[in-house]
Amino acid sequence: MESTPYLTVDVEVLDRNLSDAADAAAASGLALRPHAKAHKCVEIARRQLELGAPGLTVATVGEAEVFAGGGCADLFIAYPVWATPARAARLRALAERATVRVGVDSAEAAALLAGTGAEVVVEIDSGHHRSGVHPAGAGELAAAAARLGLTVAGVFTFPGHGYGPGRQARAAADEAAAMRTAAEAMRAAGIEPGVRSGGSTPTASTSDSGALNEIRPGVYALNDAQQVELGTCGWGDVALTVAATVVSVAGDHLILDAGSKVLGADQPAWVTGGGRLPDHPGARVTALSEHHATVVFPPGAPRPARGEIVRVAPNHLCAAVNLADELVVVRNGLEIDRWRVAARGANA
Amino acid sequence: MESTPYLTVDVEVLDRNLSDAADAAAASGLALRPHAKAHKCVEIARRQLELGAPGLTVATVGEAEVFAGGGCADLFIAYPVWATPARAARLRALAERATVRVGVDSAEAAALLAGTGAEVVVEIDSGHHRSGVHPAGAGELAAAAARLGLTVAGVFTFPGHGYGPGRQARAAADEAAAMRTAAEAMRAAGIEPGVRSGGSTPTASTSDSGALNEIRPGVYALNDAQQVELGTCGWGDVALTVAATVVSVAGDHLILDAGSKVLGADQPAWVTGGGRLPDHPGARVTALSEHHATVVFPPGAPRPARGEIVRVAPNHLCAAVNLADELVVVRNGLEIDRWRVAARGANA
Repeated sequence: MESTPYLTVDVEVLDRNLSDAADAAAASGLALRPHAKAHKCVEIARRQLELGAPGLTVATVGEAEVFAGGGCADLFIAYPVWATPARAARLRALAERATVRVGVDSAEAAALLAGTGAEVVVEIDSGHHRSGVHPAGAGELAAAAARLGLTVAGVFTFPGHGYGPGRQARAAADEAAAMRTAAEAMRAAGIEPGVRSGGSTPTASTSDSGALNEIRPGVYALNDAQQVELGTCGWGDVALTVAATVVSVAGDHLILDAGSKVLGADQPAWVTGGGRLPDHPGARVTALSEHHATVVFPPGAPRPARGEIVRVAPNHLCAAVNLADELVVVRNGLEIDRWRVAARGANA
Repeated sequence: MESTPYLTVDVEVLDRNLSDAADAAAASGLALRPHAKAHKCVEIARRQLELGAPGLTVATVGEAEVFAGGGCADLFIAYPVWATPARAARLRALAERATVRVGVDSAEAAALLAGTGAEVVVEIDSGHHRSGVHPAGAGELAAAAARLGLTVAGVFTFPGHGYGPGRQARAAADEAAAMRTAAEAMRAAGIEPGVRSGGSTPTASTSDSGALNEIRPGVYALNDAQQVELGTCGWGDVALTVAATVVSVAGDHLILDAGSKVLGADQPAWVTGGGRLPDHPGARVTALSEHHATVVFPPGAPRPARGEIVRVAPNHLCAAVNLADELVVVRNGLEIDRWRVAARGANA
């Protein structure tokens, strides 16, 4: 038995999540290009590709290298990569063994990508207000990239403002409107946006297949407490949990040995705490230190005793996986495998 | 040149921080037992021991194993360890090559430590309300541990409620009062609390050397944005920063390629954002995604251009270091070494 805390993946839940999403995307005519930054595991990526994904989405050149090494031949780095000479050389090496697309949101960044062999995808801001050009500016940037000799594969956005209760539908509508504007602007500039890529786990099910032809959810494979609290999934769909031990009981609370160095510290204002206990839905993680989770139970609710092992769903899957070296894979509660978090820390 | 984002340590600032703290502890008659969970590097631990630290503090058995392997012969695991048979076996192996002390806050946990060769230190709650017994209960628990055949080395607490603006002095006073109560209770039970250990980086300078004889700050070695915002140190004392590149400029903000997967997501309500830029003190990190920091500058302030590399101080050092595999060590801005984050992920 592994010493707690450690991460487990219920492979039956994982496989059902993957199949359901692949079926739903196929039914709506959308390509599903899963974001591998969420799970960072070659074994999960292979399952996604076997279920029909045309390729993977990643966030960094380092992640692209890991998944190319794992056999993926079609990678979209959905990020405005700044291709210094060292990074451009890595992209050239990648483009020799895989189809590589890279996000771009300025002509300056596009200029650095020229000659790497990577195609570019114009990033637009659909309301999240992070990176990306205004949708109406997509044509101008695409034309500038084309003049640099780059192949412009299409346009993408991340509707991250859908992360909040009741915000999903609005974000999906913003995304569709922005994508239509951007596609028109690109066509007016003489460039066909072959790829029109959007989506996130909260908005994936309401993505507009008229405006988009590709979605890039990541968290859906394993899910997390945030998705449950957003209403995107139920507890039965959460495949990844942290096994943690009750190490202390004091007053109205108890302490688990999984803190922010295992669960991650992500805690948007709208979540109920620092993670959730799927087997104790009334319990709340009221505080997280690095190695302590403080858990409060409702009056009268059954509480685990010192030494008991409980399951904790992290708020944000991506953060928790990136803190681990491996995932303990279980079926019917029994360990059947270990998967390496191959892209952990591949931030550059 | 390393591709951004990566962590750098200015070794001159580090060495000054270490010397200053060692001198201050010596002047006040307190043993300084640095918490190695903050830096997780054997190279930094060695410098601390050379400056007179009697040993190190760690949070987990795994961290103790790493630093014992690095040559430290005196380790205090300041955590209420639950010693399952597997963990007890690891403690036994550790205790054969080092003096090992382990925190305890229940008779049940103490019973599992019997026979491991580890000494125990009773944890009391001095106001942070996490783990630890009531100070007045320290005697009863110490006596129970002694009856189990354990050597009771003393008593400890973590005044974590001092993490907040203006809270340090009150937390230090709470700590001193609680420690006096606990020491009395232990003496009444016939057990001399040889070790009376407390302290954190915010409270270290006001620790009461009448009530304590040991402090365990960790962050002080490298410092972080939180400590600056708490007033514990100035920007010139921050030895660890993240090198990040401006990858996108949009409207009033720009985007750096260091997000929460590099800086960590810790953001208590009283900090001004998701980290700070020491060379742009007016700038604010208004949002962090996994690979994006959104930075807003005051109107008219000089802003770095796309492609420029800037330094970012994480809010919480311990979280950022635990996300990295190595630290790039610089002197006068030039790389002179790389240190492995040897205890990264040693959570169990």
